Amino acid sequence: MYTLGQIAEFIDAKVVGDSAIQIDSIASATIAKNTQLTYVVGQKHKQELINSQAGAVILNKELLEDCPTNALIVNNVYLAFAKITHYFKKQVTHQIGIHPSAKTNNAKIAGNCVIGKNVVIGNNVTIGANTIIEDNVNIGDNTYLQANIVILQGCTIGNNVFISPGVVIGSEGFGNAKDDQGHWHTIAHLGSVIIGNDVSIGANTAIDRGTLEDTQIHNGVRLDNLIQIAHNVIVGKDSAIAASTAIAGSTVIGKRCMIGGMVGIIGHLNICNDVVIGGKSIVDRNITSPGMYTGIMPLMPHRQWKKVSLWLTKLDKIITYLNIKLKNLKD
Amino acid sequence: MYTLGQIAEFIDAKVVGDSAIQIDSIASATIAKNTQLTYVVGQKHKQELINSQAGAVILNKELLEDCPTNALIVNNVYLAFAKITHYFKKQVTHQIGIHPSAKTNNAKIAGNCVIGKNVVIGNNVTIGANTIIEDNVNIGDNTYLQANIVILQGCTIGNNVFISPGVVIGSEGFGNAKDDQGHWHTIAHLGSVIIGNDVSIGANTAIDRGTLEDTQIHNGVRLDNLIQIAHNVIVGKDSAIAASTAIAGSTVIGKRCMIGGMVGIIGHLNICNDVVIGGKSIVDRNITSPGMYTGIMPLMPHRQWKKVSLWLTKLDKIITYLNIKLKNLKD
Amino acid sequence: MYTLGQIAEFIDAKVVGDSAIQIDSIASATIAKNTQLTYVVGQKHKQELINSQAGAVILNKELLEDCPTNALIVNNVYLAFAKITHYFKKQVTHQIGIHPSAKTNNAKIAGNCVIGKNVVIGNNVTIGANTIIEDNVNIGDNTYLQANIVILQGCTIGNNVFISPGVVIGSEGFGNAKDDQGHWHTIAHLGSVIIGNDVSIGANTAIDRGTLEDTQIHNGVRLDNLIQIAHNVIVGKDSAIAASTAIAGSTVIGKRCMIGGMVGIIGHLNICNDVVIGGKSIVDRNITSPGMYTGIMPLMPHRQWKKVSLWLTKLDKIITYLNIKLKNLKD
Repeated sequence: MYTLGQIAEFIDAKVVGDSAIQIDSIASATIAKNTQLTYVVGQKHKQELINSQAGAVILNKELLEDCPTNALIVNNVYLAFAKITHYFKKQVTHQIGIHPSAKTNNAKIAGNCVIGKNVVIGNNVTIGANTIIEDNVNIGDNTYLQANIVILQGCTIGNNVFISPGVVIGSEGFGNAKDDQGHWHTIAHLGSVIIGNDVSIGANTAIDRGTLEDTQIHNGVRLDNLIQIAHNVIVGKDSAIAASTAIAGSTVIGKRCMIGGMVGIIGHLNICNDVVIGGKSIVDRNITSPGMYTGIMPLMPHRQWKKVSLWLTKLDKIITYLNIKLKNLKD
Repeated sequence: MYTLGQIAEFIDAKVVGDSAIQIDSIASATIAKNTQLTYVVGQKHKQELINSQAGAVILNKELLEDCPTNALIVNNVYLAFAKITHYFKKQVTHQIGIHPSAKTNNAKIAGNCVIGKNVVIGNNVTIGANTIIEDNVNIGDNTYLQANIVILQGCTIGNNVFISPGVVIGSEGFGNAKDDQGHWHTIAHLGSVIIGNDVSIGANTAIDRGTLEDTQIHNGVRLDNLIQIAHNVIVGKDSAIAASTAIAGSTVIGKRCMIGGMVGIIGHLNICNDVVIGGKSIVDRNITSPGMYTGIMPLMPHRQWKKVSLWLTKLDKIITYLNIKLKNLKD
Repeated sequence: MYTLGQIAEFIDAKVVGDSAIQIDSIASATIAKNTQLTYVVGQKHKQELINSQAGAVILNKELLEDCPTNALIVNNVYLAFAKITHYFKKQVTHQIGIHPSAKTNNAKIAGNCVIGKNVVIGNNVTIGANTIIEDNVNIGDNTYLQANIVILQGCTIGNNVFISPGVVIGSEGFGNAKDDQGHWHTIAHLGSVIIGNDVSIGANTAIDRGTLEDTQIHNGVRLDNLIQIAHNVIVGKDSAIAASTAIAGSTVIGKRCMIGGMVGIIGHLNICNDVVIGGKSIVDRNITSPGMYTGIMPLMPHRQWKKVSLWLTKLDKIITYLNIKLKNLKD
């Protein structure tokens, strides 16, 4: 909890409004309440600013006239946001063994596990050796953690979840703001990860926590090994994702989707229900109709590929050339 | 060990034959013996059913007349199979430290290792810190496990094997059956992983156990970091696979193959001996002749790629159009 | 420290020169000093041989006349090099807890950490649970290791570095020499990893140590989750690399580059400053001009892709055919 005046000092901002109000957390512009701070970058998000219920908004002076609440004026809004996130990041207990406040119920806990403050574990849970569960994690009933798993602070794991070795849940998202010198400033990720019921997660998969809101894996989802789920991704109910796929930040995947192995899905996309993506494809646009989609280069003998790839890089020129030739012939 | 009658109850099947026979395990139709259960889905596998020596077969009523042995009739065969696997899955001991029944020989074992029941370790083995070896694992002579490795129950590691940190061997395969409501049911993987002699495995690589039979990495294989080897894959002698490659279930790779980094190989394929796959290619068909194969999109300045990719998605239409134009001109 | 005569015995080489000289380490031909051993393969590297200051060189007899120093003559130079590296590999202490010689300063060290001989840790460092730090590692001030991390012998981590769970730093590189029987012989990697200041590294990322010199991650770099950084790679200042990307051995990436997710970069390349690579592209050549580069197959409905991919594999033939047709029409 900081006053707006304190926050202004932390990020070197000018307050327009009431420096004395108390800010308890940070949220996105569209959902922030009057005790929360938000930020708005660019004219594109002007309407979100106008409608915002936030207690205060970090913004450029150009957007000041549209700000319906207290403002913190800075030059580099995203950088100021990155800096202030660290003041709201919860510290974790670095400890040995099981914290006395943890409610481990009848869980079977194998050797060398570390379980943090205020962890709550349901009925009939198994926690394999060398697993780390940080503060404030909730784990449902009948969930099985194989071994060597890390669940970072504040994440929620449902009932009947199965987690393979080497999985990391709640790691920091990959969000960075650049300063004038071209240096990156890390955003502290304040959201968490929510794993629904009846989910299984394969070996060495990593699921990042959300920036402000939570990354979500809905009921019945199947995740294979070595998958990357970035911050704020939502994977819809009963979807299945094969190994080594990576999904970038804030993408939303519908229900009952089947994503092949080694697929790359870029950030901020929407993929509707019942979509099938062929293995190794890249998804670089929204998908609004169910069905199967593919985008891969077929395998060829290397010698053949060398010839084809030469023409490929000139495809636009060749087609234009052929069209002109045809036109000339016709004339 | 269950009677066929018990199994029928577990999966809600109708027995045609002798409910009293004892079933001790599950195996594929082609190798199952008379104390084993198998399953057959679809007319495609009718011949395997006719030849099967299994004690009992889970099947649809349409295949009943071709069943040479006891039958368990269900509507959704694969789902029934998924459910019954869990009854044959071995429980592991969740413990602290080294189980008294483990034969660790003269192994150097560093801090915080957990070693399960009936583990057998050969001569001159080193086991780095925070490593977990589950029940019934066998490790050969002179093998070196760096640190933070998980080897799950029943796996076999040969002589002179080198394993880097973060490796997971014997994780559950990615096999799931769908029910009528579109929910996934996990298959418990009853096979294991067999790693031959003189193998090296890179950091954070994951090797899944087989569904019924074993995943196999043959002698002399080299695996780099962050590789995914799915259930029932076989990697032939002296093959080398570079980092971040993923091989889907049941694919068999020959001897002396060299697979580049970030290659994707889809499931149920056969790749013959002495094949070289260029980095980042996808292998989507069997390869029956030795040689080098590639399938990648060449890198271009982004602006150029945008033009090329536009034509690419219309390639079939353009070629048809050009052919018609040419034909018209000729006439 | 071995005499050249001893080394000749280890790798079954013929000495031409002084068998009595002492060799203390191995280095690349261009930087090796007179107490160091190097190797040269092929006429392509003849000039490096002629200029070498090394105490001795492993080579074929064909290059002997160009050798300015002591020579070790073998048939298979790369195999002899692979074998001799193991004699210069440092052994690590396999222990329990914190070695008495480690200088841990005021570091907060959570449960089940293992810290090796002669480790030096700066001020205000946090080391999360189940982390392993091998002998001779140096860690700077204010560095934060989340949990379950492995840092292998001799690596250096700078100030203000943030490392996510599951990261492996200093794993063996993927370097292997083939013998006459087609068996691989592992090269022991004698270099290490140097991580600069203000670097962040995402979950389950692996960074291999260098073969002879060091793998380097320069100041201000951002690495996302599940990234593979191979031996001897250099990532320049303030570059950012998104998740699941893999960079092969000895590639040098400039400053302020932004590499998308799931990009593959082949080995021994140079990428200049200020390059942006689109997600999922492959970089298969040097890049000498700043700018954005892409090489991906666009996503299509599967049915459309099947038609396009058919033409793609015949692209060279079709274009040749169309050109001939056009020419014939003209004549």
